[in-house]
Amino acid sequence: MTEGILGCGLTEFVGSAIGDTVGLVIANLDESLREKIQLDKRFRSIGIVSARIGGGTHVMAADTAVKETNTEIISIEFSRDTKGGAGHGITVIFGSIDVSDSRRAVEIMLKELDEQFGNVYVCDAGHVQLHYTARASYALHKSFSAPMGKAFGITIGAPAAVGMLMADTAMKSGNVELCQYASPTVGTSYTNEIIIAFSGDAAAVKQALLAARDAGLSVLRGMGQNPVSMTKPVW
Amino acid sequence: MTEGILGCGLTEFVGSAIGDTVGLVIANLDESLREKIQLDKRFRSIGIVSARIGGGTHVMAADTAVKETNTEIISIEFSRDTKGGAGHGITVIFGSIDVSDSRRAVEIMLKELDEQFGNVYVCDAGHVQLHYTARASYALHKSFSAPMGKAFGITIGAPAAVGMLMADTAMKSGNVELCQYASPTVGTSYTNEIIIAFSGDAAAVKQALLAARDAGLSVLRGMGQNPVSMTKPVW
Amino acid sequence: MTEGILGCGLTEFVGSAIGDTVGLVIANLDESLREKIQLDKRFRSIGIVSARIGGGTHVMAADTAVKETNTEIISIEFSRDTKGGAGHGITVIFGSIDVSDSRRAVEIMLKELDEQFGNVYVCDAGHVQLHYTARASYALHKSFSAPMGKAFGITIGAPAAVGMLMADTAMKSGNVELCQYASPTVGTSYTNEIIIAFSGDAAAVKQALLAARDAGLSVLRGMGQNPVSMTKPVW
Repeated sequence: MTEGILGCGLTEFVGSAIGDTVGLVIANLDESLREKIQLDKRFRSIGIVSARIGGGTHVMAADTAVKETNTEIISIEFSRDTKGGAGHGITVIFGSIDVSDSRRAVEIMLKELDEQFGNVYVCDAGHVQLHYTARASYALHKSFSAPMGKAFGITIGAPAAVGMLMADTAMKSGNVELCQYASPTVGTSYTNEIIIAFSGDAAAVKQALLAARDAGLSVLRGMGQNPVSMTKPVW
Repeated sequence: MTEGILGCGLTEFVGSAIGDTVGLVIANLDESLREKIQLDKRFRSIGIVSARIGGGTHVMAADTAVKETNTEIISIEFSRDTKGGAGHGITVIFGSIDVSDSRRAVEIMLKELDEQFGNVYVCDAGHVQLHYTARASYALHKSFSAPMGKAFGITIGAPAAVGMLMADTAMKSGNVELCQYASPTVGTSYTNEIIIAFSGDAAAVKQALLAARDAGLSVLRGMGQNPVSMTKPVW
Repeated sequence: MTEGILGCGLTEFVGSAIGDTVGLVIANLDESLREKIQLDKRFRSIGIVSARIGGGTHVMAADTAVKETNTEIISIEFSRDTKGGAGHGITVIFGSIDVSDSRRAVEIMLKELDEQFGNVYVCDAGHVQLHYTARASYALHKSFSAPMGKAFGITIGAPAAVGMLMADTAMKSGNVELCQYASPTVGTSYTNEIIIAFSGDAAAVKQALLAARDAGLSVLRGMGQNPVSMTKPVW
């Protein structure tokens, strides 16, 4: 992260990462802005991470960050972005009493991204994303209605029909419970995606994700595309 | 369509087409997903077609498909897409009792697209689209408030000002009745378009479309652009 | 502007400009369309300017145009556009009794853009924009809640975290009053931006903008980017 600080000379700059992601901290956010973002009065410091691509990916990373730090998720907002692609950009705001906690959350989030992007497969026509956690926390609860502390999975496919087949495959693959369904005009920011989020026991959630991944990648290949992982698949 | 099935090995895969379009069928959609898409209880099967570009174009194709098959339109959703362009992507869901009907609807829709894209003219700055049917059916009724069974036309122009001149030209060209007006923040998914849909007798609707096409193409050319048909213009 | 008229042969064509911007006039807008855009009954003529990029930039230009002509702002709509970038496209409609007034407004607006784009800095990851007027008028009032006649500034940064640091820097730099705050899901059309608008005395507003510009450009540089002005910075 030191590069970033050297790179731009701002104490607020924490670092950047894959996804045109940038992470900043503000030790003492201006009071009129605190009102606008409805920052709890206990907090004066925020960490803020924005990215052009990888909405779900960043929520996963934020979930790890909030679990491991003394911060709260203030907001998660999804822009319609991906630089001409079919999905979401994202902005996550953490709040903390001490700026060092927000800084730590941003650092963890940036560090997590490389692994999380392993299960994001992209091609010209669209993308397939799978996300898994053994224990969902506040970020996933806020964005995807995850039950706290339970194993949790997300499938995302674009163009949206790809996501529908992934959703159907995941739901049929085993004993998982649907927590959220989002489509281009409901629950997304007008992306070309169908997204589901579900919980269950760890093995069932993983099995559902693997089955959905195979279905999604097969459809994209059937379209003549060659979807590739953005980093390195973890499973 | 056989290529597709061979290409990806999924029985659900029906085919792909111009527009990064993909068409799938699911014979027995998972019950929790059926609820989410509000699928009528009579139906267990769906056909689903998603595309990155050509919102209006795909509605035209869906309209033909629903007319010629024993299916119903369950939903039509417009994403903000076109891969960095100014318009919409789309997802159409057909419902049927028997999966063979949904499959037939998806097949017809994919086959229709080549002709429908003939009246989509694109250039770097934007696009001009014209759509005509002699007899509007359920898809056009649902998306564009078309009176059932009547001759019906749609004009789309981007950037939005192009669409406004096309709209004005169409409305003044003859005896047509305005059914719908959509602009970047009303009735679109925040696209950079002005869209109108209108009905009337067949000759009047056609004349309105031809006049609008000439106006729209002239503006794009005035901007120094060279709008070209995506396939082959049919009129 | 003469080129445009020659270029496309339409009397409605006024001209084009940077930003894939096109300006048109319609002397006697079709009556059904007048209703749809809620054009005051006094007016029959409109000027309409649409652009693929530079939402804020075009509002500034429209503000100058409405100040200097006998027109009214009928609507300002922001599309989610920028051709795959992080921001807004825009459509501005002027109304007037006489078409020559609308034409004049469109001409002024197109002419203003070159200077206004000077304070728009772009790079692959995002953008930084600063806008200043000594005296806000109807366009800024309508779009950004500007108090009429007062010095007024706007800061825009993308990805959104860049905009947040710019906002914080601006608000802390001096005695300015926050008029509007917009983020990806509130007050924007799902762009990847945080935007603030503020008023105050001229010197304070300018100082806030300069401080915000430096902060925003520093963050983008910290991301390894090289933001450059779209034309020529004016301050």
